[in-house]
Formats: sequence, C-alpha cells, structure tokens
Amino acid sequence: MSKTDHLHADRLLPSADPALSVARELYEAVKDLPIISPHGHTLPQWFAENEPFSDPAALFLTPDHYVLRMLRSRAISYDALGVPRKDNGEVAEGREAWRLFAANFHLFAATPSKLWVDHSLQWCFGINESLNAENADAIYDTIDARLADDDMRPLALLDKANVEAIATTEFALDELPYHQIMADNGLIGRVRTTYRPDDVTDPDAPGFAANIERLGELTGQDVANWEGLIEAHRHRRAFFRTMGAVATDHGVPTANTVDLALGEKQTLLNHALSGQLDAAGAELFRAQMLTEMAGLSAEDGMVMQIHAGSRRNTDPLLMNERGPNLGADIPTQSNFVTGLQPLLARFGNAEGLRVILFTLDETTYARELAPMAGYWPSLMIGPPWWFHDSPQGIRRYLDGVVESAGFYNLAGFNDDTRALLSIPARHDVWRREVCRFLAEFVAEHRLSKQSAAEIAAHLSYQAAKDAYRL
Amino acid sequence: MSKTDHLHADRLLPSADPALSVARELYEAVKDLPIISPHGHTLPQWFAENEPFSDPAALFLTPDHYVLRMLRSRAISYDALGVPRKDNGEVAEGREAWRLFAANFHLFAATPSKLWVDHSLQWCFGINESLNAENADAIYDTIDARLADDDMRPLALLDKANVEAIATTEFALDELPYHQIMADNGLIGRVRTTYRPDDVTDPDAPGFAANIERLGELTGQDVANWEGLIEAHRHRRAFFRTMGAVATDHGVPTANTVDLALGEKQTLLNHALSGQLDAAGAELFRAQMLTEMAGLSAEDGMVMQIHAGSRRNTDPLLMNERGPNLGADIPTQSNFVTGLQPLLARFGNAEGLRVILFTLDETTYARELAPMAGYWPSLMIGPPWWFHDSPQGIRRYLDGVVESAGFYNLAGFNDDTRALLSIPARHDVWRREVCRFLAEFVAEHRLSKQSAAEIAAHLSYQAAKDAYRL
Amino acid sequence: MSKTDHLHADRLLPSADPALSVARELYEAVKDLPIISPHGHTLPQWFAENEPFSDPAALFLTPDHYVLRMLRSRAISYDALGVPRKDNGEVAEGREAWRLFAANFHLFAATPSKLWVDHSLQWCFGINESLNAENADAIYDTIDARLADDDMRPLALLDKANVEAIATTEFALDELPYHQIMADNGLIGRVRTTYRPDDVTDPDAPGFAANIERLGELTGQDVANWEGLIEAHRHRRAFFRTMGAVATDHGVPTANTVDLALGEKQTLLNHALSGQLDAAGAELFRAQMLTEMAGLSAEDGMVMQIHAGSRRNTDPLLMNERGPNLGADIPTQSNFVTGLQPLLARFGNAEGLRVILFTLDETTYARELAPMAGYWPSLMIGPPWWFHDSPQGIRRYLDGVVESAGFYNLAGFNDDTRALLSIPARHDVWRREVCRFLAEFVAEHRLSKQSAAEIAAHLSYQAAKDAYRL
Repeated sequence: MSKTDHLHADRLLPSADPALSVARELYEAVKDLPIISPHGHTLPQWFAENEPFSDPAALFLTPDHYVLRMLRSRAISYDALGVPRKDNGEVAEGREAWRLFAANFHLFAATPSKLWVDHSLQWCFGINESLNAENADAIYDTIDARLADDDMRPLALLDKANVEAIATTEFALDELPYHQIMADNGLIGRVRTTYRPDDVTDPDAPGFAANIERLGELTGQDVANWEGLIEAHRHRRAFFRTMGAVATDHGVPTANTVDLALGEKQTLLNHALSGQLDAAGAELFRAQMLTEMAGLSAEDGMVMQIHAGSRRNTDPLLMNERGPNLGADIPTQSNFVTGLQPLLARFGNAEGLRVILFTLDETTYARELAPMAGYWPSLMIGPPWWFHDSPQGIRRYLDGVVESAGFYNLAGFNDDTRALLSIPARHDVWRREVCRFLAEFVAEHRLSKQSAAEIAAHLSYQAAKDAYRL
Repeated sequence: MSKTDHLHADRLLPSADPALSVARELYEAVKDLPIISPHGHTLPQWFAENEPFSDPAALFLTPDHYVLRMLRSRAISYDALGVPRKDNGEVAEGREAWRLFAANFHLFAATPSKLWVDHSLQWCFGINESLNAENADAIYDTIDARLADDDMRPLALLDKANVEAIATTEFALDELPYHQIMADNGLIGRVRTTYRPDDVTDPDAPGFAANIERLGELTGQDVANWEGLIEAHRHRRAFFRTMGAVATDHGVPTANTVDLALGEKQTLLNHALSGQLDAAGAELFRAQMLTEMAGLSAEDGMVMQIHAGSRRNTDPLLMNERGPNLGADIPTQSNFVTGLQPLLARFGNAEGLRVILFTLDETTYARELAPMAGYWPSLMIGPPWWFHDSPQGIRRYLDGVVESAGFYNLAGFNDDTRALLSIPARHDVWRREVCRFLAEFVAEHRLSKQSAAEIAAHLSYQAAKDAYRL
Repeated sequence: MSKTDHLHADRLLPSADPALSVARELYEAVKDLPIISPHGHTLPQWFAENEPFSDPAALFLTPDHYVLRMLRSRAISYDALGVPRKDNGEVAEGREAWRLFAANFHLFAATPSKLWVDHSLQWCFGINESLNAENADAIYDTIDARLADDDMRPLALLDKANVEAIATTEFALDELPYHQIMADNGLIGRVRTTYRPDDVTDPDAPGFAANIERLGELTGQDVANWEGLIEAHRHRRAFFRTMGAVATDHGVPTANTVDLALGEKQTLLNHALSGQLDAAGAELFRAQMLTEMAGLSAEDGMVMQIHAGSRRNTDPLLMNERGPNLGADIPTQSNFVTGLQPLLARFGNAEGLRVILFTLDETTYARELAPMAGYWPSLMIGPPWWFHDSPQGIRRYLDGVVESAGFYNLAGFNDDTRALLSIPARHDVWRREVCRFLAEFVAEHRLSKQSAAEIAAHLSYQAAKDAYRL
C-alpha cells in the first residue's frame, strides 16, 4: 500500500509515536485475516448465479444510499443521479450520473464514503487517485472494461477479499431460491441467510395481513391463533437454518418489548389481522414479537440481532416517487433500559439466548448498552451501525463501551453493506481503528502489547465467529 | 502574536507534530480573512450613531451573561457586579464591579470567556496579561483612557476587525430606526437586520395579543384572520429585506412543528388572541408558525434560522429582579427528527427553502442534525451555539457532524454575541479549531493538505456567505 | 513505581511530549496529597472494631459488583463466584471463586476494575503482576498470609493510604452504633457518617410504612403529620451531625422535584402510609422529599448529594435469589433541568444551600449540569459516578463540564466504594486524569503551568474539603 497521501499505509492510525509504531505492529498482524461478514445486505442472487456486474454507476452509485443522500443534500437531484422512479420516468444514464458523482466527489471529504470508494477503486481496479471531474470518464472506462472479467464475478470477489463467511438477510416469507441453488453448489456455510421476519412481525409492514396469511400457507399453521403464529415462526426459522442461518434480525423503530398474557396477545393479533391496530397497538405488537423471538432464540440457539431506532422513510415525496432505502431514514433517540426490561426479565438469563444490540443513538453506548452487556450473559453489543460505522464513530463507540463491557462482550464487526466491493474497505477501517484504539491504550501503559495483539485479532476476526456461533 | 504563554501564537492548535505544523500552515492562510458575522446581537444604534462606548465594565462585564453567570455561581451577587435592578435599587459602580471581576478571573481558567476576554484586551488595548486583583485598576484605567478615541468607535472597530458584513437581530414590530439611518448613510449591506418574529409568533411572549394588534396596524392586515396574519408577516419580511435582511431567526423552546388545516389554525389564533391558550396550545401555535415561516422562506428566499432548545428564565427571582438574558437560560433535550417532520414533509424539498439548525443538545449532532442535513437539500447545520461555542464544543461538533453531513452542509461560523470587542476573538477560536481538526485529519492521512486548505478557507469565510446567500 | 508495563509510572498520562512532561510534573506534586473521601460505602464496623479482614475473595471479589457483573456477563455464575444466596444454598468457597476470577482476569482488559485491582495488589501486598490462572493460588496465599498482620487492619490501612477524612453512608433509621464507638475513641472527624434517608423518603423502599413509624419512635414526632415528618428529619439530621455528618445523600431514580402545597403533601403522606400510592404517587412523594431536604439543608448547612438516575434491580431473578447491589442496576436517561426546576425556584438562591449533583447520564454534563452549576450558587457537580468513574469517563466528564462550569464548581473526587483497598487506586486514577487533562491544556497554551498546578492540587484535595465544608 502506498505511502503517499492517497490511501497512505498509515491512514487512520495515530499520527505520531509511540502510539503509531504500536498501531502499525498491531495492524500488520490483523490486516490479512479472513473476513467474517455475519450481517449485511448483499444479494444472494449474485453468489447463486455468479454473473458479472453491469455498469460502474450500478456498482458504486445507485445502490449506495450514503453516496446518493450526500449528493442530494447539495441539491443534486435523484433524477440526475439515475435513481429509478416508480413511474419509470426518465432518469440520467450511468455515465452521466457518474460524471456528476465524480465532479462532486469533494463533498465526501472526511466521510467514510470517501474511504470506502477510494479503497474499493484501488483494491478492485488499481486506481490510485480519487474521483474528480477530470478523471471521471477515464475511471468509468477502466471499471467498465474490467466488469466482464472472470475475476470480477461475485464469487471471485469473495475469494479475492478473503471472505470466509458472509450472511445475507431475507424476510420470513422468502423461499430462499438462491440459497437453494447455493445449497446444491455446496456454497451454504460460506454464504448463509438470516431470518428477518419484519414482514410478519411489524403490523406497519406493507401487506401485513396478507403476509401473515402467506406465512400460514407456507407452514401449514393456523396463524390466526397466537400459538399457531409462533409455531409458524418455529417452522420458518428451522427452514432458514437449513440454508445456513445462524441468526435472526429485527429492524424495529424502538427497542420496546412487552410480555403479555396469552389472551392479550390473541387480541392484539385479531386486531392486527382485521386492520384495527392504531399506532400504539402496532408498537405493542412489535414489542411482544421481540419477546417471542427471544423465546424462540433461547429454544433454537439462533442469535438474535436487534437493530433499533431508525425512523424510516421520513421524506414522503421520495417514498412516493422512488421507494424506501434511499437515504431518508434518520436515527432517533433510543431507550434500551426501559425497552428491553420485559424481554430480559423473562429470558435474560436463559442459557441459549444471545441478543446482539445495535443502536443509532450513541448516547446509549456508555449509559445503557455497555452496562447492560456487562451484566447480562445473553447480551452482546454489535459494532457501530450505519451513520456511526465510520472512523470517528468507531472511536466514540470503543471509547463508550469498552470500560463497562470489556472487549469480550463485543460482537466484532459487521459491514452491513449492499456494496460488495466495499466489504474489504469497511473491515479495513474497523481493523485500523481497533488497532489505533489499542495502541493508544498501550502507549498510555494501560494494556500490554501482548494483550493488545490478542484483542486486535479477536475483534478483527474471532469475535464475530464467536458472537454468531459460527 | 506572542509565543509566550499568554495568547501564544499556537494556542488551541495541536501540541505536537506532525499535526502542529500542518495546523500552523492552515491557520496562517485563514487568520486574516474578512469576518462574516451573519447572526448576532450587537446593537444597531452603535453603528447608526457611532458614539464612543462608555466605561470598561459596561463594555466587558455587564452585557456578558457568560461572565456574569460564572461569577454569580461562585456567590458573587449581581448587585456587587453592577447589574441593574428593575427597582433601580443601588448596585455597584463600574470600577468596583471591575475589581471583583478581576480578582475572580481565575474562575474562568479553561473557559471560552477567558479566551475572549484575553484576546479582546490584547487586540483592542494591547494588554498582554490576564486580569487579576493586582492589575485591575491599571487595566481599567488603560481601557477607560482609550474609549474616547476615534478608532474605538463602533464603525472603526468594524474596520479594525475586518468585518465585511454583520447582522443584527430585531423583532417583527421593530421599526428599524437605526437601520433607516444606516440606509441613509449607505451602511446597509455591511450591516443588516434579521427578522426575528418571536414577539408575534410565540403566544408566551410578553404582550402577545397587543403585539399582534400592532402587527396589524403596521401592515394594514386583518391579523385576527390567519391568512391576514401570514400576509402581515409577508409585509414585515419585505420591509426587513429593505434593511438588508437576508435571514429570519426563531428562538423556540423546541423544534416542534405541525402542519394543521386552516380551520384549526384559525381556532388556535382565536384562542391565542383571547388569552385562552394553555401550554400545549402555545406550543402548537409556535409549531405551526415555524411551518408558516418555512413556507414564506421558500417563497421569498430568506434563510430561516432555528435556535431551538433553550429553557429561558429558569430563575424566577432573577427574572423578577432584573429581567431576561442574564445567565439563567439552560439547554434542554431536543428532538429534531420528530419535531421537524411536519415542516419537512411539507417544505423539505422546496427549492427556495434554506433552514439553518442550531442546537443546545449536542447529542443531536451525530444522531439527528448530521443525518438530516446530509439528506435534505433545504437543511444546513449552524455552528456550535452558546455554551457549546468553545474549543471543546467545536471539537465535539466537528467530530459529530462532519462524517455524515460533510463540510459543505455546515453554515460556517456565527459569533452570536452582544460583545462587539469579542467578535474577532470568537472567529479566531473557530478558525483555530477548524485548522486543528483538519490538521489532525491530514496527519492521519484522511485528507490531503490541499483539500484541508480549501475547507479551512471555506469554513472561515465563504461558508457563511454561501449559507446566508450574501 | 515501576517503569515496566505493569503499573507503569506514567500510566494514563499523555503518551508523548510536550504534554507528558507537564503531566508528570503536575502529578508528582499531587500524588501524595492526603485523601479526602467524602462519599462512599465502607462499613463503619471496620473502623469501630478494627478487626482483620477475612479471606482474599471476601476482600476483592464478593463485595465488588463491578467485578462480579463482568464475570457473570461472560456466563460465569454467581454460585461459582461464591456470591451468597438468600436460600443459603451452596456456593463456591473463597479459593475456588478466586481461581475463576484469576483465570478470567483478561476480561477486565481496559476496564477500571483492572486498574484498581492491579494497583491494590501492588499497594497492599507488593504484587507486581496481574492475576491469571497460573498465579491464582500463589497470590491468594500471599494475601491470605498477610491479612492477620496488624498493618492490614482497617485503621492501619487508612493511615497507610493517608486518608485524612472518610465518610460512610447510613440510612435515617440507623442508630449509628459503630459511630458511637468511634465517637468514644475520638475517631469522629476522621470518619464521619452521612445522612441517607432513602428508607423514609422513598415509598418504594422495603417496609416504608414501618420505617416511617420507626422514625416517629426515634424522634418523638407525629410523623403521620407532614410537618411532624419534616421535624423528625430535622432531629435525625442533628443526630447524624453529632456523628460527624456534614452531608446528606439521596439515591433517586430521577431528579424530579415538586413544591406542593401543605394539603397536597399531607394527602401524599396519608396515601403513602396506607399503601395507596401508585407509581406516579411514589415519584411525587420522592420529588417533594427532595425539595424538603433542600429546605432543611438551607437551614442546617448539610451538603445535599443527589445521586439520580439508576434503575435498580433490573434482574428479578437475581433480586429474588441474592438481593440488591450485585450488578443489575443500570443507568437511565436523566433530566435535571426540568426535574430540579421546582426545587431551584424555591431554594436555588438560598444562602446556606449546597447541592452536589451526580449523574449516570453523561449527556447531561455539557447540556445540563455545567450550565446549571455555572449559574446557581447552590449547585456543584459531583465527580463521574459509578460506570463513569473510569479513565475515559473522567475524560468525557472534564471535557463536558469545565468550559461552562469552570473548575471551581466541581466537588473534587469521591471514591464511592465498598472496597477499602481500592481507595488509593481510585483517587490515583482521578489525579492522573486531572493532570493529564490540565497538561493537555497547558500544551495547547490555554492554561499556564502555574494555574494548572493550582487546579491540580485543588481538584486532588481541597475541592472535596471545600465542597463538603470539611
């Protein structure tokens, strides 16, 4: 790696000795460890079909809501960036959008997007400069020319990135056709699905009642009955496990849970199916479902991931014109202490249970997550999520959680990405930041170099395997 | 500038290389840029009449609530500090108060007040030591002797400080007599007013119903009718623009907004005028008025500043004895995500709209403001406000906002001060901190020196011009 | 002290010059100052009877909820750690538990527990290595062999640690028998009690109604009458003062206060005594009692400590099996601005009142506590509490409070510990962190070395004496 400014070998490490030398040594020992990617949003179709990617914009720009939103915030329209419209109205083509992206790449100064894009361009295409208006076309052409090569296909990229295991995320009703293909090809294990039942646990999900009905059909259970509904989940979880699933995932607006009596639960379900739930009822339904999922995890050993606190689709115009996941989801304040109390009172000491908590509210790191994970054997803390998966975000995270939770209640790293090419870049940022943090502790004589080396390796690789029971 | 401890040339910059050298270089290039002061509370009378200031205490002590409150917190009474009483009871005279201030100047160690006062004394009076009990009288005399000099008059001080543009802040009913004088003198442009209609948008404002009535008189509108009320604002905004206003400002306890139907709005107004609004109704009125002001800004292009989250006048005794703005306003928790949702759903994508958000709740930087400004083209983030306008405050701000919002969604700096002499000091602290932050990114190889130089210049000068459409 | 990795002489100080040299110089001047320990949970019986401690596990492990909870979080059961059960069921013996502790000591990497344990082992037993599976037995034997020595008795340890004054904490109904013995021995003054009336101010305290009845018996007051109840407190406070008390302490779930009319207070009391208070009523009772206690403090000059924001006993299983204070208390969000408003409106300017605020919600440092303490003469900020009494916690604290509150509104340090041997370790961490913070300000030319030295001495020693009026 280069010693020049662009992707300097020491980037993100402490800028001076004694910490710099320690960090370099720590990083050298972990930078080439295999990648464990236990949570993310790559498409199973890529790995099942192993077809080449299409154009550069489709690879770097249109699927990356981090990049799109920043450009939009500076008054560059999604039409001009080639983001598809529901009405199939015209939007810019790939090269045109790419030029806009490149000409505005200075907007990404000091953002993680710049780190990821720069790193991906170098890692995959040997490009040693940042995008700009001048080199936009040349870089577009370089990428475009390479896309058809065999070593650019999805499975080859997994090899090149040294990905030992990667999890995709599918909804409960998904029949996992691509994972079926992978099962036939012996790929399950390296690629795994994850059970994300938001489609049937969140009454606000589009088509919720129909989804529940479909769940009944898929499992042969009477899902209008609460116990049948839970049994149906039991079936789907088992099916997902045949496709490698070791974990579930729950995207919820809050971490609220409840532990209601069966009669109350049945009433909630009745109202949900007849469309009679108000906002408070929908929240109660989600809250009860989290508790149910914890119960099932205690039973079947699937690791439960809770991603709480995103307010989704805050721009009705965008939602209307183009749909979800395009940058209008915003973090909200979270309360894990009050929220998780009913779940923990019921299952917190259950031997089989493991819950990994993710937050978008950094104030919960030192106040809630670290004290909770430092007590409950069932709780671990997931890595910094979304907006906080960034160098400063990782610094605030480690600063906030380590003293109360230690290193061994952390679940290692998740890249959580839709952008396959950025996976090595994201893990690399995590590893650099971990080494930086540890090196500073060594330099302050709070940690021996040997302990730091063990912890660096743990957080770079083993922690994720352990946390997800891989 | 001196290399000694007192106002050392490198103060606030990183303490060692490699970051120190980079920071010095960055700072050298921006330290003498003109000052843009787009939001503050200097008095228009100063610039219109250009009279000499009176005594040193009136210049440094009695108008500075930062200084007063700290002394008061250590049991030094406002009487002893010469703060006027409503009952005209006796309070200490200037020199007496000044001696107390000086004798207790050690209380300000490590506070921004000390930086501002030290810098102002040096900049304006060539005083190269901090205040203390021993030099109190001598420094008082030095200042006092200079106050009558022509180069100490307000307009000369603007020149000396290289202030290119400065905005004052006036209420909606203000007839702007001093700005009228400045208009005659060709000063409008360099000095501008700002439309702050809290007197007629906040039902809790003193004399609210009478204020509304007066608004009707001033504009010839039927302000008992909702649409007439909005039209009246339209008139006042246009009038303020003739006095240089490019922005509005809104001091609100929360960032709550609503978007009600016309009938509901009229009912609110009826209740407000008849004094029938309870606390929730007053909050609803303010919330609707923020949305209305956003609509008008989309229409007329005035930049909308929202200063949300101060709990005003928390000490009833102080309020009763001496009035507002004397240090008893305390920050509160804020929620911009939920609060601004109705306003943004209605106007967030409106082309002409620009809203600059200020917070006293630093937890909103990374959780709310940066993600929101990194999506909505209409939103920008104002600089650290009030208590957080300080070296550590600026560090936390940049740390929290830059990765998600980038540098180009920031509105540069506001000094927001009533203390004319501290304007250069405050901008200098901002510039030093910006250079420090950037230098650390350069030293960690996350930013090229050239990018850092561009961003330093932008945040020191151009950002404020761009943000306020100057 | 050693220059090797284990308890390096420079631990926690900045890792490089120029800040390192400054920090060393500052630390050298404060490290041997006497210890003032104005708030904590050591047992008065120790000092009254001055008997030897029993086994090593009882000294280091079973009373330390920080240590226990971390081990439990990694699925090591409290049975295996020798934590007593209410049902007197068998639990591991000392040496067995000690081995588990030692074998898992790596879990404490980078936690304050490791700093305290390492330091205590060295300070008290000359042990110059961290615990591990290999040295577990040898270290156990070393400690065990020393426990009977005279210089290991509680009073000798106070001498050895240079403790000038230490406060214990007793409930209102405690008859202070051990302090009576100490009074006879002339120890009161060096050891002091603290009035913590939670047993009779919190309707949720076990046996509340009986406690109130007992309070009446002890004081001869009609405690079913509100004014009698307050008079009873007046009596107990006076009695505690005869046993050296200079302070009261209040452990409350929130900082909420109210200032009700007498009739409302009487109704609350009636309901509390007849067991008719719901959760909101109990909160109201506590809220009123805080205001009453402030009134009494204004009257008698006892310093009022408010420890707000812990959600106690979040694990019902643990509570049921073993009781409170074993690691299941978790911080919650706090609101001091709204919460304390009624108390401050009533007594905030009362001359005799001093309230020291402790928070578990670090977001309140810069947003609430510092602005409030920087205004109200009656308010001071306590040191970082509980989970936040750690190196990073102290850094966040100083970073957050100093600029708005200054150094002189801080109450110095509390060790707040049950672990006698860790007292010097905890004060040492505080002093190192204070010197580190100040050294960085000196290195950035924001503070003169002389001011830094004065402030370091103040925060290490004098601040606690001043704050607690010792």
